[in-house]
Amino acid sequence: MTPSEPIVAIATPPGTGGVALIRISGHRALPLALQCLSAKHLQPRHATLTHIIADGTLLDQAVATFYPAPHSYTGEDTLEISCHGSPYVQQAALETLIAHGARLAEPGEFTRRAFLNGKLDLSQAEAVADLIHAATPAQHRLAISQLRGGYAQKLAQLREQLLETTALLELELDFSQEDLQFADRPQLRLLLADLQQTVRQLADSFRTGQALKRGIPVAIVGRPNAGKSSLLNALLQDNRAIVSPHPGTTRDTIEETLTIDGITFRLIDTAGLRESDDPVENIGIERAYTAARQAHIVLFLHDSQTPTLQAEADIQSLCQRPLPEHTHLIVAHTKTDLAQPDRQLGILISSTAGTGIDQLKQALAAHVAHHPAAAAETLVSNARHHSALLLVLNALDHALQGLREGIPTDLLAVDLRDALYHLGTITGEVTSDEILGNIFSRFCIGK
Amino acid sequence: MTPSEPIVAIATPPGTGGVALIRISGHRALPLALQCLSAKHLQPRHATLTHIIADGTLLDQAVATFYPAPHSYTGEDTLEISCHGSPYVQQAALETLIAHGARLAEPGEFTRRAFLNGKLDLSQAEAVADLIHAATPAQHRLAISQLRGGYAQKLAQLREQLLETTALLELELDFSQEDLQFADRPQLRLLLADLQQTVRQLADSFRTGQALKRGIPVAIVGRPNAGKSSLLNALLQDNRAIVSPHPGTTRDTIEETLTIDGITFRLIDTAGLRESDDPVENIGIERAYTAARQAHIVLFLHDSQTPTLQAEADIQSLCQRPLPEHTHLIVAHTKTDLAQPDRQLGILISSTAGTGIDQLKQALAAHVAHHPAAAAETLVSNARHHSALLLVLNALDHALQGLREGIPTDLLAVDLRDALYHLGTITGEVTSDEILGNIFSRFCIGK
Repeated sequence: MTPSEPIVAIATPPGTGGVALIRISGHRALPLALQCLSAKHLQPRHATLTHIIADGTLLDQAVATFYPAPHSYTGEDTLEISCHGSPYVQQAALETLIAHGARLAEPGEFTRRAFLNGKLDLSQAEAVADLIHAATPAQHRLAISQLRGGYAQKLAQLREQLLETTALLELELDFSQEDLQFADRPQLRLLLADLQQTVRQLADSFRTGQALKRGIPVAIVGRPNAGKSSLLNALLQDNRAIVSPHPGTTRDTIEETLTIDGITFRLIDTAGLRESDDPVENIGIERAYTAARQAHIVLFLHDSQTPTLQAEADIQSLCQRPLPEHTHLIVAHTKTDLAQPDRQLGILISSTAGTGIDQLKQALAAHVAHHPAAAAETLVSNARHHSALLLVLNALDHALQGLREGIPTDLLAVDLRDALYHLGTITGEVTSDEILGNIFSRFCIGK
Repeated sequence: MTPSEPIVAIATPPGTGGVALIRISGHRALPLALQCLSAKHLQPRHATLTHIIADGTLLDQAVATFYPAPHSYTGEDTLEISCHGSPYVQQAALETLIAHGARLAEPGEFTRRAFLNGKLDLSQAEAVADLIHAATPAQHRLAISQLRGGYAQKLAQLREQLLETTALLELELDFSQEDLQFADRPQLRLLLADLQQTVRQLADSFRTGQALKRGIPVAIVGRPNAGKSSLLNALLQDNRAIVSPHPGTTRDTIEETLTIDGITFRLIDTAGLRESDDPVENIGIERAYTAARQAHIVLFLHDSQTPTLQAEADIQSLCQRPLPEHTHLIVAHTKTDLAQPDRQLGILISSTAGTGIDQLKQALAAHVAHHPAAAAETLVSNARHHSALLLVLNALDHALQGLREGIPTDLLAVDLRDALYHLGTITGEVTSDEILGNIFSRFCIGK
């Protein structure tokens, strides 16, 4: 480990509270901090009552704990100073430590150092940020699983296998004059097909992983006045505390999040479907179809006062657009306090009377519970990992095709090296300052 | 110490951050917390890496530190668990500890227990709240001085002296048949006069202490269009970052705070002074005079384009209202980019050109620097202490008057007991649940 300059930050949430925690990490963190404390020395990991001294005067009473390298979060010498949670004290303490030679940490710099010092792999470091921002049990479970190693271990195994095979291929290249084959081709094909399947499963889990992280998209569609807004209100009112408004990606789409049994859903309100000659309205209707195609669940609302035949035609034209095969369709008949549908296609609800709302929520939750991927330990929820997995998949496809076509060993080795490279970017065996900068800039300062 | 039920709270500021701190205090805090941790035991004051377990599953990785009684903040067995600063994790950890038998702490309950266990006196406990909410160096200095003992030591000395004398008087009562005088009357008078002076100095320091805590009131007065608003803007623009708007006590008064050299000033904009027959306008003008009377500094603005004679008359009528003797008057001639005053009474400023603004700020800061009480260690800034000191003063006045009139010993003893009682309420030798409730309810939860 090379000596690293001492960095400092407030590690606790900003603002006023009983206690705040200041973290200092790096070479010479201890002697630097001791210059700002009344304590003469600090025993490792012992919580020591001391004073923070700024400009020769008492700033605050504090508790300081020293975590010597390598047994600290960053793997470097680290100090944690717990002081009163006054914004003034926090700021003044920070300034004193900076005046004595520490530098204000950049966002995520502590975790970046933990990664660089081998305390965490890159996917675990990313899980730290996810954990901190987790708002539901499902998001939290995903982050904890990733933090504990999650699919990193699975990826390490894949990488190991691929590395061995690639080494054998490259050995053949060294002996290319002799036309030897160290790697048995049919066996290689089996191995690559196996890898391909595992990577594809991981890549496919992104759809669910991302949905659990950001909320499962539910498009609410139906004719104008089918009762979409009333239903939205009825759904949200019961859960007012855990509702948050999200401005949509387009100005015309309003998204609201709703948490049922710890799973977040993103309810997407769409323009009412109807035949129209108005080009502007038709754009809105096209957007509704797009929202339906991108959603995991399409919630089709039918006004019970109108003919069911019309609803069936609408559903048919919706499905013919077409919807992806894994889209889950839920039909609900609205306004059942005013009329009963002439034929029952789905759940009977009345937003006014509040009937059927719980049944609808159960139907939404059941979709997730029955989804096979929801139970899997290895859900990819990180867009960067997903991209890398797609690149791995691409390289493997290429290699397999090459094998079938009997391409030369050196070209085959290039494809496998490519797959290895992209696998390595996920856990950080292969990385660049740019990748690291991107990842850690999204952290909060002090972590 | 009686066994106290375990209480728990998030001690760090609310919200998202790298780290959050959960604090548990009370009898059986350790075994209770260990039920929610993977650690089997915790060495005193040793920062131990562990897992928080909720409902049998891993909630978070955390560092737990055990502070055994009596060497903890509260004086009871206390645990601090430092976990990831995710609102979800914080809430879930809190709920787990509550499910295992802890109770959510009330605001200030940790500090209340510290007081009840003799770790802090009452004025120090109040200083903790002041320290946490300190926003300027002056407020911080006041709180730290009070936290370190401040005038509590001075009060303890006074109380000691008074207690001795009262005991002697009460001894006389026991021997009242024999008509003995244990307490020499002339000496008693000297002692009481001495006490009276000290208490009066402390009570008087409240004006400055309160001003340092809340901001020194500066009334800006002058004729309409004297340039009050422009000056306010010019003063605030330079310090935009540390300016905060305060709605005034009346709707017609706008207060802005300005920090110069770490001292907060409350700038109070007033209605323009002029002769008026409009009763509504006259109310505004009366309010301006009231603001001037209540201010520590009156900043009188004169439009350099108008006769100085008029300004002098205005100042004279202002002073005749009358202003309290300790009011500091600063005169400034405005709009000096347009005209020069026909006679110079004060500082020349131009808010448009920005000239004279620094000089004005120096004049404001100098007022505080030269104020004798500003340097004193013993500034009373707490309204409750001030009220108590006034009651002590009242009892001492009564006793001294009684001494002069030769009232019986038992009546004299009643006055001294009264003085002792009110002195005792400040540091908490005498207290009630109501007083404690009032004080600690203003704390944040977790302190």
